[in-house]
Amino acid sequence: MNKGLKVAVIGGGSSYTPELIEGFIIRAKELPVDDIYLVDIEEGKEKLSIVGELAKRMFFKAGLKTRVHMTLDRKEAIEDADFVITQIRVGGLEARARDERIPLRYNVIGQETTGPGGFAKAIRTIPVILDICRDIEELSPDAWLINFTNPAGIITEAVLRYTNVKTIGLCNVPIGMVNNVAKILNVDSKRVRIEFVGLNHMVYGKEIYLDGKNITSTVLKKLSDSALINMNNIPDLNWDKDFIYSLGMLPCPYHRYFYMTDEILEEEIKAFQSGEGTRAQQVMKIEKDLFEKYKNPSLDEKPKELEKRGGAYYSDAAVSLISAIYNDKEEIHTVNVRNNGAISNLPDDVVVEINSVISKTGAKPIAFGKLPIKINGLIQQVKSYELLTVKAGVTGDYYTALMALIANPLVPSVKIAKKILNDILVQNRDYLPQFK
Amino acid sequence: MNKGLKVAVIGGGSSYTPELIEGFIIRAKELPVDDIYLVDIEEGKEKLSIVGELAKRMFFKAGLKTRVHMTLDRKEAIEDADFVITQIRVGGLEARARDERIPLRYNVIGQETTGPGGFAKAIRTIPVILDICRDIEELSPDAWLINFTNPAGIITEAVLRYTNVKTIGLCNVPIGMVNNVAKILNVDSKRVRIEFVGLNHMVYGKEIYLDGKNITSTVLKKLSDSALINMNNIPDLNWDKDFIYSLGMLPCPYHRYFYMTDEILEEEIKAFQSGEGTRAQQVMKIEKDLFEKYKNPSLDEKPKELEKRGGAYYSDAAVSLISAIYNDKEEIHTVNVRNNGAISNLPDDVVVEINSVISKTGAKPIAFGKLPIKINGLIQQVKSYELLTVKAGVTGDYYTALMALIANPLVPSVKIAKKILNDILVQNRDYLPQFK
Amino acid sequence: MNKGLKVAVIGGGSSYTPELIEGFIIRAKELPVDDIYLVDIEEGKEKLSIVGELAKRMFFKAGLKTRVHMTLDRKEAIEDADFVITQIRVGGLEARARDERIPLRYNVIGQETTGPGGFAKAIRTIPVILDICRDIEELSPDAWLINFTNPAGIITEAVLRYTNVKTIGLCNVPIGMVNNVAKILNVDSKRVRIEFVGLNHMVYGKEIYLDGKNITSTVLKKLSDSALINMNNIPDLNWDKDFIYSLGMLPCPYHRYFYMTDEILEEEIKAFQSGEGTRAQQVMKIEKDLFEKYKNPSLDEKPKELEKRGGAYYSDAAVSLISAIYNDKEEIHTVNVRNNGAISNLPDDVVVEINSVISKTGAKPIAFGKLPIKINGLIQQVKSYELLTVKAGVTGDYYTALMALIANPLVPSVKIAKKILNDILVQNRDYLPQFK
Amino acid sequence: MNKGLKVAVIGGGSSYTPELIEGFIIRAKELPVDDIYLVDIEEGKEKLSIVGELAKRMFFKAGLKTRVHMTLDRKEAIEDADFVITQIRVGGLEARARDERIPLRYNVIGQETTGPGGFAKAIRTIPVILDICRDIEELSPDAWLINFTNPAGIITEAVLRYTNVKTIGLCNVPIGMVNNVAKILNVDSKRVRIEFVGLNHMVYGKEIYLDGKNITSTVLKKLSDSALINMNNIPDLNWDKDFIYSLGMLPCPYHRYFYMTDEILEEEIKAFQSGEGTRAQQVMKIEKDLFEKYKNPSLDEKPKELEKRGGAYYSDAAVSLISAIYNDKEEIHTVNVRNNGAISNLPDDVVVEINSVISKTGAKPIAFGKLPIKINGLIQQVKSYELLTVKAGVTGDYYTALMALIANPLVPSVKIAKKILNDILVQNRDYLPQFK
Repeated sequence: MNKGLKVAVIGGGSSYTPELIEGFIIRAKELPVDDIYLVDIEEGKEKLSIVGELAKRMFFKAGLKTRVHMTLDRKEAIEDADFVITQIRVGGLEARARDERIPLRYNVIGQETTGPGGFAKAIRTIPVILDICRDIEELSPDAWLINFTNPAGIITEAVLRYTNVKTIGLCNVPIGMVNNVAKILNVDSKRVRIEFVGLNHMVYGKEIYLDGKNITSTVLKKLSDSALINMNNIPDLNWDKDFIYSLGMLPCPYHRYFYMTDEILEEEIKAFQSGEGTRAQQVMKIEKDLFEKYKNPSLDEKPKELEKRGGAYYSDAAVSLISAIYNDKEEIHTVNVRNNGAISNLPDDVVVEINSVISKTGAKPIAFGKLPIKINGLIQQVKSYELLTVKAGVTGDYYTALMALIANPLVPSVKIAKKILNDILVQNRDYLPQFK
Repeated sequence: MNKGLKVAVIGGGSSYTPELIEGFIIRAKELPVDDIYLVDIEEGKEKLSIVGELAKRMFFKAGLKTRVHMTLDRKEAIEDADFVITQIRVGGLEARARDERIPLRYNVIGQETTGPGGFAKAIRTIPVILDICRDIEELSPDAWLINFTNPAGIITEAVLRYTNVKTIGLCNVPIGMVNNVAKILNVDSKRVRIEFVGLNHMVYGKEIYLDGKNITSTVLKKLSDSALINMNNIPDLNWDKDFIYSLGMLPCPYHRYFYMTDEILEEEIKAFQSGEGTRAQQVMKIEKDLFEKYKNPSLDEKPKELEKRGGAYYSDAAVSLISAIYNDKEEIHTVNVRNNGAISNLPDDVVVEINSVISKTGAKPIAFGKLPIKINGLIQQVKSYELLTVKAGVTGDYYTALMALIANPLVPSVKIAKKILNDILVQNRDYLPQFK
Repeated sequence: MNKGLKVAVIGGGSSYTPELIEGFIIRAKELPVDDIYLVDIEEGKEKLSIVGELAKRMFFKAGLKTRVHMTLDRKEAIEDADFVITQIRVGGLEARARDERIPLRYNVIGQETTGPGGFAKAIRTIPVILDICRDIEELSPDAWLINFTNPAGIITEAVLRYTNVKTIGLCNVPIGMVNNVAKILNVDSKRVRIEFVGLNHMVYGKEIYLDGKNITSTVLKKLSDSALINMNNIPDLNWDKDFIYSLGMLPCPYHRYFYMTDEILEEEIKAFQSGEGTRAQQVMKIEKDLFEKYKNPSLDEKPKELEKRGGAYYSDAAVSLISAIYNDKEEIHTVNVRNNGAISNLPDDVVVEINSVISKTGAKPIAFGKLPIKINGLIQQVKSYELLTVKAGVTGDYYTALMALIANPLVPSVKIAKKILNDILVQNRDYLPQFK
Repeated sequence: MNKGLKVAVIGGGSSYTPELIEGFIIRAKELPVDDIYLVDIEEGKEKLSIVGELAKRMFFKAGLKTRVHMTLDRKEAIEDADFVITQIRVGGLEARARDERIPLRYNVIGQETTGPGGFAKAIRTIPVILDICRDIEELSPDAWLINFTNPAGIITEAVLRYTNVKTIGLCNVPIGMVNNVAKILNVDSKRVRIEFVGLNHMVYGKEIYLDGKNITSTVLKKLSDSALINMNNIPDLNWDKDFIYSLGMLPCPYHRYFYMTDEILEEEIKAFQSGEGTRAQQVMKIEKDLFEKYKNPSLDEKPKELEKRGGAYYSDAAVSLISAIYNDKEEIHTVNVRNNGAISNLPDDVVVEINSVISKTGAKPIAFGKLPIKINGLIQQVKSYELLTVKAGVTGDYYTALMALIANPLVPSVKIAKKILNDILVQNRDYLPQFK
């Protein structure tokens, strides 16, 4: 690759795009990008234009010649691309709001990536992502698909099972955990390493190292003494001290939904009733403000406000991953990848989130051995849910969809699973062509 | 074995014993028993005497010379026994009542074998069963331990992991399911066969055969058209039609606790508030009536009322199992046994409930292959819970006990797990020497 | 099945057929056969006629109304059959003679089922057996295929991998070992049970029981004190005492080829040079004599001489297997069947030879757990060879065929593998349409 | 570790030591070594002194202050060491000569690391290495044991199974293969990467990359066109073209013993009869010359001649491994390490040779997935042999030793295995205290 790269960003009109652009600017020396294609759909045209113009100003300010293209023609963007990044949100924030509201109606956690909300998002997204993959198979079969789109584990599972596209699924949770541990310890995050193992939004930090020294118990002690490890989009609830001690490893912020279900649910209901709305409604406001800012023709850098979103660090994670591939770095990143025996009590062919060696040949997971019994049950349960969801998303089979929801640990019974499923199918009718 | 057998029944004063005696009487020709030792503890002395005398009258009426011994000396009973049967209830029905009440206080299902109630029963029982096993290792190392004591899967797991005793765990759920399918189809139960797979009280009928013909879908159709498959001790709630169709196999009655959690809980709370009491309280009444009957010196057979208990068919299952071993029958029974690869996505060394070939060498599971994804999650989750419970029951470690309860799918959160655990530990203090 | 059965015997003109007929006659009460179709190819027409007439006389003598049909039309025989038995020999005894001679030319064991000879037989047979399976799929999809054709493990593997036919592979080695142990112990063979595990012609008797009592060490002691366990077609060589003690289980007669390679080879070379010829040549003489006998119109039973063949007990094994299926017996037979986890360190989807429960639903292997290290290496090696052979037999790919031979433990080097392969391909050209 | 390191070299009087010293000198900046302890036994005293003095001169020339200690007191060397390197040869070159000669007597390949020679070396070495490990457990429990001693896979397996010492097994074969591929391609070896998988001296290059581009087929083509990939100690025989094409991956030089057994044997016999002697005898001459050179007080660098030995690159491999650990590099090295699921059809707990991530926490294998069938058989067979050898080496059980040799693919029969074993036991009596 002696000429510069072509990068296609599907969902280019996203409010996160400036982060991504900043990531490319920061790494411009090691990662020469000639062309960035921001693609969006008709409904996103205006946002695309706002974000695209900002991106241009950012590159200009940085003195880079990277060309920014805005287009509604996905094929044009994908053709001969070296990297395709997907950050789409099928149905937009309105759909997210519904994903959060439907479960709440039945006293079930409403969240956009785990629980029934994540299920709805998954089955809406799978047909679209598979369509994108058909384009890649046809127009740029050697391209790497870097998938941000949530639920990232399920989407990556679908792509690996049903297409030939080379893909890596990415999430900002692991990098966020590293940064938070560094903050707790008051050290530079480069000195911290965590042995991650699990699934997307269900990842555990099995061991934690500072300068190569195992400091897991120190961190857990601090954590149980109330140092929070959290993300902006999850209620701030402290972990129970005895739980942390029993677990003996670092849970991820999303684990709160599974281990603190009742408390989180209470918070959600409170927020909803107080008029604060679901997270989606809050985000709509933030987005609106952001785009107002983006429009300002004198803005030529990423505004600070963007970091308040749950997706912080994504850009860093994504562009550094792309650079590790492009530069054949053999660097360790935590990504969603085919298991291949790395977790030896999960099948070889399922997607896991795990520390992996990144090089030009992609991501190879580092062998972990067996999951400890303490976490094996939950991970197996959630993986079964994910596999059923992928199957439901691809086939549009009602009964598989029902079993998927039943298998989700946040769904309390068959009766409620059925009610939620029926609501999801009705309210997302336009986005679920596979369910006839 | 040219002379008759010696059988020791630990917990011999149980109200179920007359069933067992009947089982031995029915099979007297193929299974020559010289001596039955009914063992109980000091507190059960009176019941032991009542049941023992009834047993004597039953054998006498049948014209058999089997000697019935009543003793409080366990070692005497175990010495040189050919079979040791355990049907103990550590803490008696009072403990059971507590097991059922504690979770209900936190809006969690209170049941004596699944959920936190089963957990409490398990950690009370494990030290006692291991003590019994020490006696067997010393006094009759070749004896077979036939374990009825609930939670049978967990207890068998403990025995297999921590002793050298040859054991088979037995439950009446599979035989009950066969009988119920036969009833639904209005055929003799000998013509029905079910391919069972799973764990104790978590077993599925994967395929159902009538005279060797696969009739699974017929049975499921009838089932979803409201034919009930249930046991006397579980609320009568119909399965959801779409769920049965989605599952594509026969759930066991206990699955209601997992798939119909909310409805079962509602029933339990209603029953409790109506003054009907928990199941334990109802059983206490039934027991009282039964023992009144047993006392009648003219009674010389098993009274019909006994069949109303949840434990119906146990005697048949147990004595026919013993006969299959003694007569080296190579007959198929559904038992709790070391997996050995039979379910190929569970470890070799865990206990599963599965169709097995019974002969003088014990029980060998029939290979099943991988669990379908539909049921893999729940089974893995419950197996993890069981393994943690065994470890907690043996070590008395608080943190392991907490992780066990957290891993139980009926426990909704860490917070509630902790409250329930603390209540269990306090209220069972006298029975938990391992928890200091 | 209220009417009698239709059985198709592919390769019906075989000299073994009278054994099979005898088997059906002996079990006539439990296994009502209306029609037996003996099928053969043009070249076997005369033999077919001789054997068919003998079969008719045998049924007549037994007072049975079973109709014997002789036909060259395979489809007619297979249509609506309940059982299809394959006992074909593609290329006849001439091909077998070549299979035995080619390896010998390079100082490699020449044997018709193991080593390069078995490989040649396998790749000749696979296209024919798959053709037969296409017919079954079309004309009698519910029929059971009982495969005798050697190498039975490989052929069964091919059928299971590449067709939808319900099949069980059968070999007389396990039953022969049971009978021989009974002979050594001077007891009725019904009292002896062996826990078999391994592959076809590579099966070990892990434990041996007499009336349910483990007598493995007694038998091994006798064996190492020179009691032979062998078959008529394998040189009579005593096992080394220390080897038997080290192994701690019962090897099968064919294991001599692998553990006593040098001595067997020496015997073969001696026999060959002495003019005694290879085994095929000896068999040709025996066959000629047998058919002379069969022609005798006054002969109406199986002649004793047939028992001298290596295939003794096949009829008993085969018909009793068919009866176990038909009568839904849940009886234990040692057969070639999909592993399904039974041997937990082999993949689920490979064929193994193992004790299995036989019923109307076919053969289900009894879970064994992990292969002991002592035998794991050889079994894994041979299974790899078998899988490569199946692939080579189906695809006709030269390189896969070469890797198959290289993987065979009887082939000493790549150089010799290549020479042998080239000879096999040239000399079997007419039977290998898949190798272009 | 703010002060410099202490390194203990067991077998410090080896002729390879100057390479190791050179390795430390080259990396002095990143790897500050204060003290190197060269340990040897009484018989090696003179060599130790010669090598030690040379080492001192080498460090002096390099301007480094590293102190070189020569000692016969192993405990002194091990106490508080950061790294312990073992490069011992129990029984010296005389024992090696016997290892090579014994098998040859029976027409079996005589080689010091594979086949019966490697077996003899293993059982001589295991008791000594376990003794060393006891010292480490006591005197420097946090030290890393870097094991060079052959057969490195077996020795590492023994250490991991029977001690608590943190160990990594190292071999120069993978690095040699990388260098040779680079030579064939005429490129810098840093641009070449190979995905290695297998066992020690049984490792395959599954994929080969140049600058991240897969060039496996190019290299295989060149290889089959006669470019040799070999080591100094293995006869120079070309691979068969069709074999390379069939295999589709890069065999290691030692694979010749398994795939070209007859040709190698012929070469060995020829060499032996020609008076050239076994490899050990040739090495004795080379060693003698080397030590003459080392004695020269004006020599202060590693002599070129050392590179002619089979062990070339070891120093580079070893010191760069130590540096990767010390500097927590997360660099990829090919080492012998606990499998942990990396090869998903081998058990988690066996040692494999595989690309691994090296950091302060040691070596973590990169997940590979299942071994291709083509190589699975041989690898499983050799791993079974290795496990039996470890057990025999630890227990001194004759029967386990016999099964180990029988399981070795280079041993043609039980009969020969027994003869060779008996010779080995007699001729190594002084070094086999565990065999009584």
